[in-house]
Amino acid sequence: MSEICQLATSDSDFQQRLDQLLAWESVSDASVNNIVNEVLGNIRRRGDAALLEYTTRFDGWEAATASDLEVPLARLEQAWNNLPEAQQIALKHAADRVRDYHERQKGESWSYQEADGTLLGQKVTPLDRVGLYVPGGKAAYPSSVLMNALPAKVAGVSELIMVVPTPGGELNELVLAAAHICGVDRVFAVGGAQAVAALAYGTESVPGVDKIVGPGNIYVATAKRAVFGQVGIDMVAGPSEILVVCDGQTDPDWVAMDLFSQAEHDEDAQSILICPDADFVAKVKASIDRLLPTMEREPIIATALKERGALIVCKDLDEACAISNYIAPEHLELSVADPLTLVEQIQHAGAIFMGRYTSEPLGDYCAGPNHVLPTSRTARFSSPLGVYDFQKRSSLIMVSEAGADTLGKTASVLARGEGLTAHARSAEYRLK
Amino acid sequence: MSEICQLATSDSDFQQRLDQLLAWESVSDASVNNIVNEVLGNIRRRGDAALLEYTTRFDGWEAATASDLEVPLARLEQAWNNLPEAQQIALKHAADRVRDYHERQKGESWSYQEADGTLLGQKVTPLDRVGLYVPGGKAAYPSSVLMNALPAKVAGVSELIMVVPTPGGELNELVLAAAHICGVDRVFAVGGAQAVAALAYGTESVPGVDKIVGPGNIYVATAKRAVFGQVGIDMVAGPSEILVVCDGQTDPDWVAMDLFSQAEHDEDAQSILICPDADFVAKVKASIDRLLPTMEREPIIATALKERGALIVCKDLDEACAISNYIAPEHLELSVADPLTLVEQIQHAGAIFMGRYTSEPLGDYCAGPNHVLPTSRTARFSSPLGVYDFQKRSSLIMVSEAGADTLGKTASVLARGEGLTAHARSAEYRLK
Repeated sequence: MSEICQLATSDSDFQQRLDQLLAWESVSDASVNNIVNEVLGNIRRRGDAALLEYTTRFDGWEAATASDLEVPLARLEQAWNNLPEAQQIALKHAADRVRDYHERQKGESWSYQEADGTLLGQKVTPLDRVGLYVPGGKAAYPSSVLMNALPAKVAGVSELIMVVPTPGGELNELVLAAAHICGVDRVFAVGGAQAVAALAYGTESVPGVDKIVGPGNIYVATAKRAVFGQVGIDMVAGPSEILVVCDGQTDPDWVAMDLFSQAEHDEDAQSILICPDADFVAKVKASIDRLLPTMEREPIIATALKERGALIVCKDLDEACAISNYIAPEHLELSVADPLTLVEQIQHAGAIFMGRYTSEPLGDYCAGPNHVLPTSRTARFSSPLGVYDFQKRSSLIMVSEAGADTLGKTASVLARGEGLTAHARSAEYRLK
Repeated sequence: MSEICQLATSDSDFQQRLDQLLAWESVSDASVNNIVNEVLGNIRRRGDAALLEYTTRFDGWEAATASDLEVPLARLEQAWNNLPEAQQIALKHAADRVRDYHERQKGESWSYQEADGTLLGQKVTPLDRVGLYVPGGKAAYPSSVLMNALPAKVAGVSELIMVVPTPGGELNELVLAAAHICGVDRVFAVGGAQAVAALAYGTESVPGVDKIVGPGNIYVATAKRAVFGQVGIDMVAGPSEILVVCDGQTDPDWVAMDLFSQAEHDEDAQSILICPDADFVAKVKASIDRLLPTMEREPIIATALKERGALIVCKDLDEACAISNYIAPEHLELSVADPLTLVEQIQHAGAIFMGRYTSEPLGDYCAGPNHVLPTSRTARFSSPLGVYDFQKRSSLIMVSEAGADTLGKTASVLARGEGLTAHARSAEYRLK
C-alpha cells in the first residue's frame, strides 16, 4: 500500500495542513557558503589555473591544459550523428515546436511621437553573451538544454556558452546532441561553483557572460546567488510540483500516472490532486496502489508521495480553483470537461495543462512552451523562462525644443520640491 | 578648482583606469546581516508586537497600538489638498505622462490554435498585492512614489501597500500627496528591515504581499535580498550614474549642469562625459569650475566628481558608443546633432536621452518613462522598472486528442531517453 496524505477542505485544520505540505525552504548552510565563496574567490583571482585544479578535484579527471576544457563543436555534431534515428527525430520535433512557440514571445522596440515633436519609446535588444549551466550525471537532461538554449537563441543572443561537468571525463552524448541542434556556440567541460565563477568573471579561456541560466545542485545555486549583480541569473528553482484539478471524469490511471510523473523527479517533488468527487479520489488512490509497484522509479515516487503528496477532496471546482491560486503551482492540470471556462478563474500557475489529453509530460518535452517554471508558490510573481529573459529594454526619450519648455517647467517645480537644484537648473537651461 | 579625472582613450592605461572608475561593489557586512536576520526572525515570529518595538527603537516614536501604524487614506487626501497649486499641477502633469507611457508596456494574453486543434498560448495576469517601500528622511522623493506606484496600478495590481518610515513620527507631505494621486491602497508608517519583513511575511495588521519594490538604505536592501523567494523583489540599485556622449556642439554649461544633476544625488554618484573634441572638454571643465561654487549641494557634487567622475576625450563618436556599451550606463545622454542615427549603435543603457534639449532630469520627473533604472553595468542584462514587473505569465497548453497522439510519441522517446518512465507512460496512455 502506498502512503499519501488524504485531506478534505472541510477538515477543520485544512489550511494549516495545506501550509505544512507546501512549506519548503532551501537553505545553503554555512559550509556550502564557505566552499562556494572560496571557489569564487580563487577563480576570480587565478582564472584557468584554479579552474583546472577544481576540475581535477571535484570532477575527477585531469585536463592537460585549459584549452582541453573546451569541447569542440565537431564533437557535438558527432554526438548528433551517432544518435539513433528515433531520438534524432524526436529531438528535432521538440526543438522545432519550442522554437516556434518562443518566436511569439519576442519583444519588439516601439516608439511614438507627441504633438510637440517629442519622441518616447522603448528599445528592445538581446543580451550579448549568455552562460548555460547543464548538470552532469543523473540529472543531465537534453530537454533542459533545449528549454534553456532555444529562448536565448530566439532572442538573438550572439554567443551562448554551455558548461557541463563531466565526472570522470565522460561526456553525455544526448546533451551534446541537444546542444548541437540548438546552435550552442561554445561548450566547456566544467561544472560546479567553479563553472559559475568562470562564466561570471571570465578566465583566460572561458569568456565572461552577462547572464547565467540553467539548473544545478546546491553549490551551483549558491554560486549563482552570490554572483547575481555581477551577472544576471534565472530563478533558483525548488522541487518540481504538480497540482491536478479533476472533475472526477478522467481515467483514474491517467491521473495517477500524471502524479507519478512529477513524483519520479526526486524525493522532494510534490504531487497533489484536488477533486470534488470523493469516490473518484478513492479510485485514484486504488490506481496509485496498483500501479506504483510497476514503476521503474518506484522508491523515489513512493517517498515523494508519502512526504509531500496529497489527495484533497473539495466542495466544488470553484473551491479547487481558489486553492490552486493559493498554491500557485508550477504545473497545473485542469483535467475537466470544460477547461477553457475554468481557466478564467486561474490567476497563479507556471503552466496550465487543459483537458484530459494534455498530460504534463507533453509540456516537459515538446508541446512548445518552456518547462523551466516558477516553483514553491513563486508563480504569484514570476513567469516561465522565456525569450523576455534574454532581452532587455532601454527607455528612449527625445524631447523637442517645445517639449523641453513644457516638461522643463514641471521638472523644475518637482526638483525644487525635492531639494535637487542641479536637476532643476539643468531643466531650466532648456526653457525658452 | 574642482577635481575630476581627465582621461583619453588613447592613454595606454585607459581600459584599466576606466575599470577602476566603474568598480563598485555593494557589500552588506556581517553586522548588517546579523541585525537584518534578527529583525526578520522577530517580525516573522512576533508580528505586530515586534513591529511596534522596532518602530519605537529605530524611528523614535511610539505608536499606542498596531492600528496606529496605519496612515488613513483621508490623511493622504489632506496632504494633497494642502499642497501649493504649482506642486499639485506639476505632480498631476507628471503622473498623467508616466501613466500614459506605461500603458503602452502592458502585456496581453495571447494564444493560437494548430491544425490538429491543439491550443497554445500565454496568459498574462497582474500580481495580487505589491508592497512599495518609500525611504524616509532626506531621500523621500515624491517622484519615486509615482515611478514605483503607477506601473503597478497600470498593470492592474489590486492592492498596493506603501510603507514609509516616519522618523520622530513626522510624515512627509509631498510623499503622502504623491501616494494619493497614484491611488495607493494602504499606507503604514513603518520602515527599515522591519517594514520589509512585515510586507514579506505579513503581520496581524500589515498584509503580506507578493512583491516588494522601491529603494532603501543598506538595511532595506539586505532585507529585500533575504526575503527574495518568499516574495519577488525589484533590483537592488547601486549609486546613480550618467554618461554624456557629446559631439562638442552643446552649450558646455548645459553639459556641466547635467553632470551635476547626477552628482548631487550622493557622494557615490557617477558622472562621466565622453567627447571627441578636446577643446570642448576643456570648456566643460571650465564651466564645472565656474558653476560648482554656485550650487546648493556643492560639497556632495564636488566629492562625487572627484571620487567617481571623469571627462574622457575619445577618437570619434563610434568609439564613444563602443565605450558606452561597455559601461552600460543607467542614464545615457546623446547630446549630438543626429541622435537617431547614433542610437542605432547603442546596445546597453537604462534610459537614452537623445538630443541637446533632452536633459536627464526631464526623465527623472515627467517625460513618461520610468526613473528606476539598472545601475552598475546591469543594463547589460536588465531593464527599467515597468508594467512587466507587475505582471506575470502562465503558459497555456490544451492538446487535442490528435495532438496527444503526435506529441505523445515524441515525449515518450525523449522521456525514455532520460530514464523518466512515468513521464513516458503518462504520455503513452493518451496515444490512440
